[in-house]
Amino acid sequence: MSTQEQHLPVVLIHRLPAFNLSFTSRLHTHFTLLDPLLHSPESTESFLTRHATSIRALLSVGPTPVTSETLSLLPALEIVVCSSAGIDHVDIHECRQRGVLVTSAGNAFSEDVADYAVALLIDVLRRVSAGNRFVRAGLWPEHGESPLGSKLGGKRVGIVGLGSIGSEVAKRLMAFGCSIAYTSTKKKLAVSYTFYENVNDLAANSNILIVCCALTDQTRHMINKDVMTALGKEGVIVNVGRGALIDEKELVQLLLRGEIGGAGLDVYENEPHVPKELLTLDNVVLSPHLAVLTPESFAALQDVIVGNLLAFFSKKPLLSQVQLD
Amino acid sequence: MSTQEQHLPVVLIHRLPAFNLSFTSRLHTHFTLLDPLLHSPESTESFLTRHATSIRALLSVGPTPVTSETLSLLPALEIVVCSSAGIDHVDIHECRQRGVLVTSAGNAFSEDVADYAVALLIDVLRRVSAGNRFVRAGLWPEHGESPLGSKLGGKRVGIVGLGSIGSEVAKRLMAFGCSIAYTSTKKKLAVSYTFYENVNDLAANSNILIVCCALTDQTRHMINKDVMTALGKEGVIVNVGRGALIDEKELVQLLLRGEIGGAGLDVYENEPHVPKELLTLDNVVLSPHLAVLTPESFAALQDVIVGNLLAFFSKKPLLSQVQLD
Repeated sequence: MSTQEQHLPVVLIHRLPAFNLSFTSRLHTHFTLLDPLLHSPESTESFLTRHATSIRALLSVGPTPVTSETLSLLPALEIVVCSSAGIDHVDIHECRQRGVLVTSAGNAFSEDVADYAVALLIDVLRRVSAGNRFVRAGLWPEHGESPLGSKLGGKRVGIVGLGSIGSEVAKRLMAFGCSIAYTSTKKKLAVSYTFYENVNDLAANSNILIVCCALTDQTRHMINKDVMTALGKEGVIVNVGRGALIDEKELVQLLLRGEIGGAGLDVYENEPHVPKELLTLDNVVLSPHLAVLTPESFAALQDVIVGNLLAFFSKKPLLSQVQLD
Repeated sequence: MSTQEQHLPVVLIHRLPAFNLSFTSRLHTHFTLLDPLLHSPESTESFLTRHATSIRALLSVGPTPVTSETLSLLPALEIVVCSSAGIDHVDIHECRQRGVLVTSAGNAFSEDVADYAVALLIDVLRRVSAGNRFVRAGLWPEHGESPLGSKLGGKRVGIVGLGSIGSEVAKRLMAFGCSIAYTSTKKKLAVSYTFYENVNDLAANSNILIVCCALTDQTRHMINKDVMTALGKEGVIVNVGRGALIDEKELVQLLLRGEIGGAGLDVYENEPHVPKELLTLDNVVLSPHLAVLTPESFAALQDVIVGNLLAFFSKKPLLSQVQLD
């Protein structure tokens, strides 16, 4: 550790071995980084205990769990900075109890995720991936014209969670001639879209559900059998939030029985495992949690992570603090 | 033929055997339909000769060629009503010489084709179909995170042909934060998008080309090697117009050599045959000419076909007359 580094604020890099931090050089400019995984064979617990008094900030990379056990090892911790939009991997109750602040990726990914949600939706409605598969399998010359898709314009779209992603989805789908309704923790006074107090009513009045809210104890499996049945046989569900927002087993059953029209899924309950029953369905588009995967999103993410840490250490307002109540 | 039918205007159904007309009942209400294919084994030529003096209107179904030979058999013909947006299958010179009017599908398909173009574009940029293939092949658990895509917002999009489809594409992509430029037969005074007089300049100043103009002698292979090279290594081409607007052989070579970034193709030079070199590329989305295939498009198409025929026989202005010069 150089003399200069000793004067930089300390940030704990908290990550699963599979997740590398791609922009450490920028963080190194401002902070002294502690990464237990670089100090093996010392155990993470021993490492954290040894540095406990100096660690006021933790950077949680991707979905690396921030559990009550981790938090109890870090009595000096004041802030958990997350690199994801959702923070369902953080023990929010424990953070609140300990007065630990939490920040998310904020809006860094919102446009890319919204773009991706629209692509999944048109893909399901207009059979883009199915057509692509058909061509690549060499079936076109023999089988001729494809089945009809369904027009996007005129569809009633229900957005589940009108946060920054949901708002970007709405803006895009308006340009396609869709009508927009939503459910959210509360009615947004700044927008004119139709508000429904609960997701059942939203589903009953929509052709399409776009699921893009946060995963919490309250929202887990909120898209249950009743909601999907209310959406109906022609209904399409797009999920770019978290897998567990949908009761995945029920979704699979409804799709297999033709009781829902189709689905575009970027997230699953047990990633990277995708229910194998879905792998052969033509009315389902499956993607490997890649809605945020662009260089532009990562650049914006670096800005928000570095910005939050700098703000914290200089006692300025955080860029994307999560309200824990 | 009933007494009533004898008093209805006669319309010749001109179709290849593979193309059925799905809405004859609605046409039967207004017209007496003559379909040579229903009178086999009599040859089409013999059938046409027998009815020649009574045939003032011809309905060309899909891409069924309307050649100078066909036209020469029908001296009383006054109008060719097409069921497609493009009319490259009609001998326009001969129609002009004979004073035969031509109508197209007009705007019936424009929104659906524009939606599809946007879907193909996001699919190529964000690797939707490639991700879908990856998941379905069961590769996610083993191979982990996918390669990065590229953000749509901020891209400079060049629209080749700012007709009704191109205008709908532009409207949609504005909502994604793209900047729009175009080339067209002439500058459109009603829009503020940047105009380029030729497609080379458009390509040199764009990240993306959306090809959606009519195929004519002037536009055949207008997207040639020079244009694609000007678009550059990261450039993406989407074609929802006609296959022959692009020099397909050159496109294949540039894709194979990595000299162009990717392509989303719904049309090909030799449909239903797709260049086999493309079938294994991950940066290419291939679809079997299905951008118009929705019930909504077909309903709108029926309206415009029946509307054009009724207008013709009652000497009213046609709904979607094509200017032949």
